[in-house]
Amino acid sequence: MNDSPPLDVVAVAAHPDDVEVACGATLAKLVRQGYRVGIIDLTDGEPTPHCPSPEVRAAEARAAAETLGVQVRIQLGLPNRRLMDGFDARVALAKQFRIHRPRIVIGFGDATPTASPDHWQAKLITDAAVFYSRLTKWDQHFDGLPVHAVRRQLYFRLALEPDTIAGHSHHLLVDVAATLQQKIDAILCYQSQFAHKPAIESRIRAAALVTGSLAGVDAAESFVAVRPVAVDDLVTTVL
Amino acid sequence: MNDSPPLDVVAVAAHPDDVEVACGATLAKLVRQGYRVGIIDLTDGEPTPHCPSPEVRAAEARAAAETLGVQVRIQLGLPNRRLMDGFDARVALAKQFRIHRPRIVIGFGDATPTASPDHWQAKLITDAAVFYSRLTKWDQHFDGLPVHAVRRQLYFRLALEPDTIAGHSHHLLVDVAATLQQKIDAILCYQSQFAHKPAIESRIRAAALVTGSLAGVDAAESFVAVRPVAVDDLVTTVL
Amino acid sequence: MNDSPPLDVVAVAAHPDDVEVACGATLAKLVRQGYRVGIIDLTDGEPTPHCPSPEVRAAEARAAAETLGVQVRIQLGLPNRRLMDGFDARVALAKQFRIHRPRIVIGFGDATPTASPDHWQAKLITDAAVFYSRLTKWDQHFDGLPVHAVRRQLYFRLALEPDTIAGHSHHLLVDVAATLQQKIDAILCYQSQFAHKPAIESRIRAAALVTGSLAGVDAAESFVAVRPVAVDDLVTTVL
Amino acid sequence: MNDSPPLDVVAVAAHPDDVEVACGATLAKLVRQGYRVGIIDLTDGEPTPHCPSPEVRAAEARAAAETLGVQVRIQLGLPNRRLMDGFDARVALAKQFRIHRPRIVIGFGDATPTASPDHWQAKLITDAAVFYSRLTKWDQHFDGLPVHAVRRQLYFRLALEPDTIAGHSHHLLVDVAATLQQKIDAILCYQSQFAHKPAIESRIRAAALVTGSLAGVDAAESFVAVRPVAVDDLVTTVL
Amino acid sequence: MNDSPPLDVVAVAAHPDDVEVACGATLAKLVRQGYRVGIIDLTDGEPTPHCPSPEVRAAEARAAAETLGVQVRIQLGLPNRRLMDGFDARVALAKQFRIHRPRIVIGFGDATPTASPDHWQAKLITDAAVFYSRLTKWDQHFDGLPVHAVRRQLYFRLALEPDTIAGHSHHLLVDVAATLQQKIDAILCYQSQFAHKPAIESRIRAAALVTGSLAGVDAAESFVAVRPVAVDDLVTTVL
Amino acid sequence: MNDSPPLDVVAVAAHPDDVEVACGATLAKLVRQGYRVGIIDLTDGEPTPHCPSPEVRAAEARAAAETLGVQVRIQLGLPNRRLMDGFDARVALAKQFRIHRPRIVIGFGDATPTASPDHWQAKLITDAAVFYSRLTKWDQHFDGLPVHAVRRQLYFRLALEPDTIAGHSHHLLVDVAATLQQKIDAILCYQSQFAHKPAIESRIRAAALVTGSLAGVDAAESFVAVRPVAVDDLVTTVL
Repeated sequence: MNDSPPLDVVAVAAHPDDVEVACGATLAKLVRQGYRVGIIDLTDGEPTPHCPSPEVRAAEARAAAETLGVQVRIQLGLPNRRLMDGFDARVALAKQFRIHRPRIVIGFGDATPTASPDHWQAKLITDAAVFYSRLTKWDQHFDGLPVHAVRRQLYFRLALEPDTIAGHSHHLLVDVAATLQQKIDAILCYQSQFAHKPAIESRIRAAALVTGSLAGVDAAESFVAVRPVAVDDLVTTVL
Repeated sequence: MNDSPPLDVVAVAAHPDDVEVACGATLAKLVRQGYRVGIIDLTDGEPTPHCPSPEVRAAEARAAAETLGVQVRIQLGLPNRRLMDGFDARVALAKQFRIHRPRIVIGFGDATPTASPDHWQAKLITDAAVFYSRLTKWDQHFDGLPVHAVRRQLYFRLALEPDTIAGHSHHLLVDVAATLQQKIDAILCYQSQFAHKPAIESRIRAAALVTGSLAGVDAAESFVAVRPVAVDDLVTTVL
Repeated sequence: MNDSPPLDVVAVAAHPDDVEVACGATLAKLVRQGYRVGIIDLTDGEPTPHCPSPEVRAAEARAAAETLGVQVRIQLGLPNRRLMDGFDARVALAKQFRIHRPRIVIGFGDATPTASPDHWQAKLITDAAVFYSRLTKWDQHFDGLPVHAVRRQLYFRLALEPDTIAGHSHHLLVDVAATLQQKIDAILCYQSQFAHKPAIESRIRAAALVTGSLAGVDAAESFVAVRPVAVDDLVTTVL
Repeated sequence: MNDSPPLDVVAVAAHPDDVEVACGATLAKLVRQGYRVGIIDLTDGEPTPHCPSPEVRAAEARAAAETLGVQVRIQLGLPNRRLMDGFDARVALAKQFRIHRPRIVIGFGDATPTASPDHWQAKLITDAAVFYSRLTKWDQHFDGLPVHAVRRQLYFRLALEPDTIAGHSHHLLVDVAATLQQKIDAILCYQSQFAHKPAIESRIRAAALVTGSLAGVDAAESFVAVRPVAVDDLVTTVL
Repeated sequence: MNDSPPLDVVAVAAHPDDVEVACGATLAKLVRQGYRVGIIDLTDGEPTPHCPSPEVRAAEARAAAETLGVQVRIQLGLPNRRLMDGFDARVALAKQFRIHRPRIVIGFGDATPTASPDHWQAKLITDAAVFYSRLTKWDQHFDGLPVHAVRRQLYFRLALEPDTIAGHSHHLLVDVAATLQQKIDAILCYQSQFAHKPAIESRIRAAALVTGSLAGVDAAESFVAVRPVAVDDLVTTVL
Repeated sequence: MNDSPPLDVVAVAAHPDDVEVACGATLAKLVRQGYRVGIIDLTDGEPTPHCPSPEVRAAEARAAAETLGVQVRIQLGLPNRRLMDGFDARVALAKQFRIHRPRIVIGFGDATPTASPDHWQAKLITDAAVFYSRLTKWDQHFDGLPVHAVRRQLYFRLALEPDTIAGHSHHLLVDVAATLQQKIDAILCYQSQFAHKPAIESRIRAAALVTGSLAGVDAAESFVAVRPVAVDDLVTTVL
């Protein structure tokens, strides 16, 4: 039986802190707007050079989740540094979608050159899990969890990555002027990752400012709609 | 003095029927939603093979405007078939923007291979007129009309043209299932242009259906935001 | 020993009905033109929500093949929903190429966002199998089947998918006005897949009409040549 | 009255030698295949550093035309180095189309960075002239020449230019192994342009060889179809 | 006679402050590295809302030039807001190239949506002027100035513009950490343009920081090479 | 313990001869410039139709390495024709990076349509191995080899492949006029691969000539920088 109340939005990371860097301000804003939001980290992200233990990273992730105000944060326990798309990983993530029933799933949409190959694998796993979540007649793999159709899948963009998700024509920017500080606060919860990178704050601010200035707002985060979105009211959408 | 009530949206055509083919259903929908909408035809579109006179084309354009329900339709009288971007054309259009004060301007965004070169010139003129409309200290060219800053410029897409506006990453689709018939009715007002092209109705329907099916709706029209749009509520935008 | 007469064209699907939706009208046309055509379905496509059994889906596939008139349809029996590129799948498909010796192979060329991840895997498997089919000194994997060099590989496009195979510059359209109805009839053989989707017929028609109207014909299907094609007679090719 | 027999193909240049460098081998091949071919040079291409007079360049152009075997070569006399798209230039070229009635027009399709701006203007003029040629009710500009609808417009590519016509998805390669030498001979007719550039021959050969090797032939020239082409027989087209 | 010592680099603007915003830090760095640098403003940029007179803008431009340390700044006096590519504008700029003999010319490379149409015209004029500057046998237009071949043309990018110069594959980034402050100081010389836009400094910094972070440096400006550059020492170029 | 002197550049191939065809002239030039260069072949490339044994191919590879003058050539022994990205392959290559400590790694960057699927897998393995090489706290997989951070990763391009690495905006060309003959000599060491393909020499020359002519040099090879490069001296970089 599944007693979890449904989530509006679930963001999927390869490692704790991916989601914060990519779309932390949007998640914080969604929470403020009254939506229920979750984060799923596929791996625990460890080891890393300056983190003493997985437990420390996990505590940082919890603090970041609190800072953003998200209702749920899940650690899926897939292998860090060697994440691979495959049946078991897909099912593990799809089960979470069936349990938490998000209307919107946000995740990686492209490889990140010279960074972890886990990011591309996370994209493949998330794409497949969105599909698996709605497949009927597969109860044997899902412990009786009912199927769940995610209504909309989006790709995020790591704040400091260039040109990811190239070639897509359906970009969406979210105005995050009101929650940019919360995003930075959440990122700074990861002392093990960023304490020795003092430039992180100014770089995150700069990325949000530059993205925002394209759209005439003070700060923004950028997304791609995997399928085009048809809006109902053109005027309120663009003004 | 300028007594015209402001318009929410103005669509700019090279020739009467461009706007109907490109975004007639969206204009009809905007009118139904309570917005004030205008159409500006840069030329009278004549001569054409089957049209007996410019007056007939003008009457067709008026009938089409009534069918869509738009509040204003203006004939700018620039030379058909030899439209050229230049100072006078820019000012003529910008004056209309200053008079009607649209918040949103929609127009051509790309050349249309093998079709009229006027389309590309219309794009250049519209881009420049949006800029000219907000320029201060230019009263000598504008008969004292006060400056007007258009808040958002969009490019439309001729329904049967491929890949126009290539390279833009900020596409917007509008769900037009409710007004597609109105669009077709407006197009059919142009008997001089389409009476001998009976396939027009099925082709317009097919284009709307295919565009819509990409986004999971029954019919859609496609636009490009000249500048990215930052939305406020991600959930209501994409669901 | 291999007594099968060679095929001119083989189309490779992930699931029964992929080929019909993507290029059914072209296959029917090739048959009418006197070519020998085959279809290879990598998986049986089951289970699906409304299909009572794999046998029913197989019967539908046979009926569709008859409707199109293709000479051969093969079920490869790879696992549905969890198709994965790998050595065994590649060899299984390459064996079929060695047996049926197609001059042209047509198959998936891109991922299909939000649809089955099997499509992308089918692309990888087909690419590799075209290569494996011509490799010498590998008898141990091919039961003594002689090598076969496919002369041309094409990618098809699912009729209702946007922008697949992006970035390729060598598109080919085939005029299918004469066989579009046959394509629709073949698709309607799949009652288990489409009986509850009555819009399928109008959407397939609309896609063919829109593709065709770009090229000035009544209906067309779209392909990408994996390698550029050099034509001999430019005039007859383009007129 | 118009006694000129119709041409199958007309290639339009900004300057004498453009067409030879871009598609000389294809034109020679078309002539061998029995088609009637013409060349229209918009300007006389003079002055240039090493050419003693416009008459010398014109004689070279005539010799090159003979080498290719084309039936017609016309000098339009528009101003070299300062070619500008405009009504008069468009009409001048469209008149030639009405006189020679080509089924196919080939010309510039893109700017050529750091080379003459005339190339881009030639593209604009050619696009517009193809359109003007078929416009009815414009006798006052055409001396009573009847309208002529060009059936297909193609863009060529200067042999040594990179990536021109970017973004188009409908490329066509023509196998020119049999006439590459003729192309080179025609280019070498322009002693005033190439006598001091001895590398021209090896560069032209290299460009044809590289283009051809992509398509598995010994030499090729590359074109873009302004509108997609729908073929009738897929097998004979691609094999 | 021409006594001007040759310049290494000339940057061409539509309006005073374009060059500062686009590549002020690179120009300042070039000066520090011992190169001779000039700026050519095609128009005086006036009127603008907050500038009392053209003289004030000119004084600001002089102050900015001093801040950057460039040796030459020229005002070409073409008409602001209605700049148009044409023979006279091309010759006027080419004369300056012949006088100052730059090895490298940097200028606009793309339109800037919703901003001044002058930018695109400046691009066309600059492209043509680079070509005109090296044309022989045109003394009548150049007052006897000897021809000058610019060796390399680059396109810059306005710091806050997105995706300009799309489709080019030969981008160049310049590390400007050492001179970013000088750029900002030069921009702030334009009190008439920026005094009421206090965000300009943080936005300029953010753009440089984000561009730099892509390449692993603290700040960068971005250019496109109009023609590819072949380097001699790969290791020192990329490390 | 690791006594190997560090290398400046390591090029990674799927099969012996890939590196020669892709960037042999650049490697030879780097050696002449005094850099230490290595080649790592992931597989032995055998069997192939005309090669009597893996030993013959290995001897050819050694001869080619001597011809280029590279200091190190390593055979990694992964399975030819069925190379697959995975943990073991990544670690095997990353160990070599830790042993030889290259500052620059060059390798595959894209799939090669209709050619071996190993090329794409080589790209995935190389990307991941560059990442694995710098990961701390993984001694158990690396036999105590210390971490090594590759400073720059580049993608090469097979000389006769079209448009690989599409979409990247940071191309780098290297002038290889001085070492093109050495590249060809190295390629001709592979008698088992090319003795029956006499056109190889002219095709390799043509590809280098065409690439070079884009940049105004006699011959060039083409690379993509995985991350943008910020240069210090713009003038010496582009002149």
